Amino acid sequence: MPSGYTTISFLSDFGVSDEFVGVVHSVFRSIAPEVEIIDITHGVPPHDVRAGSLALARSVEYLCPGIVVAVVDPGVGTDRRRIAVEVGEGESVLVGPDNGLLAPAVAMVGGPKQVIELTNNSFHLATSSTTFDGRDVFAPVAAHLANGVPLAEFGDPIDPNSLMPAIIPVSYIEEEILFTEVLWIDQYGNVQLNIGIDDLPEGKLQIKIGERIYPTNVVSAFDQIPEGGAGLIVDSAGLVAIATLRSSAASEFSICTGDSIQILNATDETTITTQVSLTPKKEST
Amino acid sequence: MPSGYTTISFLSDFGVSDEFVGVVHSVFRSIAPEVEIIDITHGVPPHDVRAGSLALARSVEYLCPGIVVAVVDPGVGTDRRRIAVEVGEGESVLVGPDNGLLAPAVAMVGGPKQVIELTNNSFHLATSSTTFDGRDVFAPVAAHLANGVPLAEFGDPIDPNSLMPAIIPVSYIEEEILFTEVLWIDQYGNVQLNIGIDDLPEGKLQIKIGERIYPTNVVSAFDQIPEGGAGLIVDSAGLVAIATLRSSAASEFSICTGDSIQILNATDETTITTQVSLTPKKEST
Amino acid sequence: MPSGYTTISFLSDFGVSDEFVGVVHSVFRSIAPEVEIIDITHGVPPHDVRAGSLALARSVEYLCPGIVVAVVDPGVGTDRRRIAVEVGEGESVLVGPDNGLLAPAVAMVGGPKQVIELTNNSFHLATSSTTFDGRDVFAPVAAHLANGVPLAEFGDPIDPNSLMPAIIPVSYIEEEILFTEVLWIDQYGNVQLNIGIDDLPEGKLQIKIGERIYPTNVVSAFDQIPEGGAGLIVDSAGLVAIATLRSSAASEFSICTGDSIQILNATDETTITTQVSLTPKKEST
Repeated sequence: MPSGYTTISFLSDFGVSDEFVGVVHSVFRSIAPEVEIIDITHGVPPHDVRAGSLALARSVEYLCPGIVVAVVDPGVGTDRRRIAVEVGEGESVLVGPDNGLLAPAVAMVGGPKQVIELTNNSFHLATSSTTFDGRDVFAPVAAHLANGVPLAEFGDPIDPNSLMPAIIPVSYIEEEILFTEVLWIDQYGNVQLNIGIDDLPEGKLQIKIGERIYPTNVVSAFDQIPEGGAGLIVDSAGLVAIATLRSSAASEFSICTGDSIQILNATDETTITTQVSLTPKKEST
Repeated sequence: MPSGYTTISFLSDFGVSDEFVGVVHSVFRSIAPEVEIIDITHGVPPHDVRAGSLALARSVEYLCPGIVVAVVDPGVGTDRRRIAVEVGEGESVLVGPDNGLLAPAVAMVGGPKQVIELTNNSFHLATSSTTFDGRDVFAPVAAHLANGVPLAEFGDPIDPNSLMPAIIPVSYIEEEILFTEVLWIDQYGNVQLNIGIDDLPEGKLQIKIGERIYPTNVVSAFDQIPEGGAGLIVDSAGLVAIATLRSSAASEFSICTGDSIQILNATDETTITTQVSLTPKKEST
Repeated sequence: MPSGYTTISFLSDFGVSDEFVGVVHSVFRSIAPEVEIIDITHGVPPHDVRAGSLALARSVEYLCPGIVVAVVDPGVGTDRRRIAVEVGEGESVLVGPDNGLLAPAVAMVGGPKQVIELTNNSFHLATSSTTFDGRDVFAPVAAHLANGVPLAEFGDPIDPNSLMPAIIPVSYIEEEILFTEVLWIDQYGNVQLNIGIDDLPEGKLQIKIGERIYPTNVVSAFDQIPEGGAGLIVDSAGLVAIATLRSSAASEFSICTGDSIQILNATDETTITTQVSLTPKKEST
């Protein structure tokens, strides 16, 4: 088939305890028996739109061209819009709720080319349910798209500028201290910050977590981190993460997603203690 | 191939920590390399036949035609029967233990057309193991079925009326109170009851959980539930569920699967307190 | 295509919370769109090379011929080698880090025929990341292998005898007591020991866990275990496991992976008590 797509990539907060993911797969395959389905993840914390948007953004450059269905949708059943966003030269279409979930990924692949609100319910499952648009709306739309139904048939075009944006926290420097925020804690307990390697101050570094200060080094392998210490490493998404040696940095330092963490220069005079009054001596980058 | 099936849908209590699911997939694909496998879920609580039977029943109307393998089988190795149940006009065959697991799903698609006990072990894997019929019996039988082996070759026909039934609790009304039971708590903490929307009393409602009574409303979106309150919503399976606003109702109210929950009319005189002596004034439906 | 492989089987400690597994699938499919992917499991405990090697060894005889990608790789980014191990007559190639993870599986299928260190980075993804060789090295190598690129093109041959071995604990008998070690606790809490059924002493048996001694029997079905008691059963991998009736033996007896457990003959004189000084009277096998 000249039009259409061969792959649906699928991300959600459905978890793997229930049959939600399997039912959505069944809907995909019932309508588009030839389509390949790749599960990006279904482990997004329930209702956590920001976490879902970040997981999708971290994945997007690796995804196969085709359709991306993303569902983290606490507002299901309300009048929040259901959308399909064409990106690139039509190689991919992202399908999901207009709640910021898709925004960072769309931005990373060059922004929206065309956006359709999924108002044509002849492509939705006929059901009286209002709580499972993943099954009833997004899955059948994606499958019909895979089958080659033109995007414009699914509803009305809407202004790409009207899409809900995502709020990504930015780091900043104040009084020579780099203030960062924890974006993500992964399966291993690595603590991803909202900075790249070039954002780090030069020289010897310390990290301040809560009221405690720890010395740290930039490393290129987890095994370079000293036992009991903390390292900074460029993670697989290209951002700086705090890591420990074969343990969970998040557990060791009691860090949660969204926490504020400060990075500052270490000087010879700085004594590392449990509670220290912080007196950085050197200008950071 | 004119006979045979293109899809195996697979549900179990195997979890995702171990290699059980992967090994069963490998057996499917070793015997039937072209078959598509859809995992319904493997998150059924270990040994919980009732939870598995309900998950299968909730899924069954969405599954692709073909073979359904369901394995929640605490009696593995005993003389409980291993069965294949043909339904419809042969569009689908359900394969699993005869312990009630398949019964609600079979009933929902019109009852059994033909049942075979899987006594022909020439289609089983040759193994001395007695503990993993999912791998050794159900998977190879399903794969050979997919390849077009006629159902009758897998063993002896048995009387469909001899199948183990499922026990689904029914709601009832007593002294104007609707007594319900919790069937399922999903990934989000929504509490599914064994009633439909038409079973609810008319008028203003309250729910009694343990000794506490809470006011509630029927809503059509989670976001219509007031902060700190409880809503009743028709869930994606068409049953009434107790939900809260972007939190887990099960956690908020300490509800477990199998708990009894009462629904009753609220009257102006009813005072909502921590412990209230319940005096409904109005006849329920 | 005469050369190449149709299936990639994939095991890791990536978990299902994050997008790691989905991203690796996407890389597989981007390079080798026709390949089938079977997830063995991604539930290996983080960084637990031994647990991963045992899960792979338990699975290997059931896997489809083709490529096996296994990634439990705490040493990622160091100079530990990345390898591809051809086994059999080239039916399968195992790809992963040279840290012992592949060794038991390779041994079970007859040992290595040819080993290549993956030094040719023209087959790796171009990335500055050092922390995700699953995505950047092992996935593209496996996909190109599936596409028919000859193994020798991926790097330099290395001596199979130089591979990191796996350390599997062996059981032993001392003063008529069989000393075993817990290899694995599965989803159900069954406790797999490093012994086969023929290693058991003859006659009535007891197990000693910590300082407590429990009577036990060899059973062939979980349902033969008495309520509140412990049974020994040949598990699906052919090893002896301690099990309880529809509960988790690991929880009931507070057993962890790696624990030492002793098996000994019961005699009429032996009194089963909470703390007993152990005096076995009869020679074991």
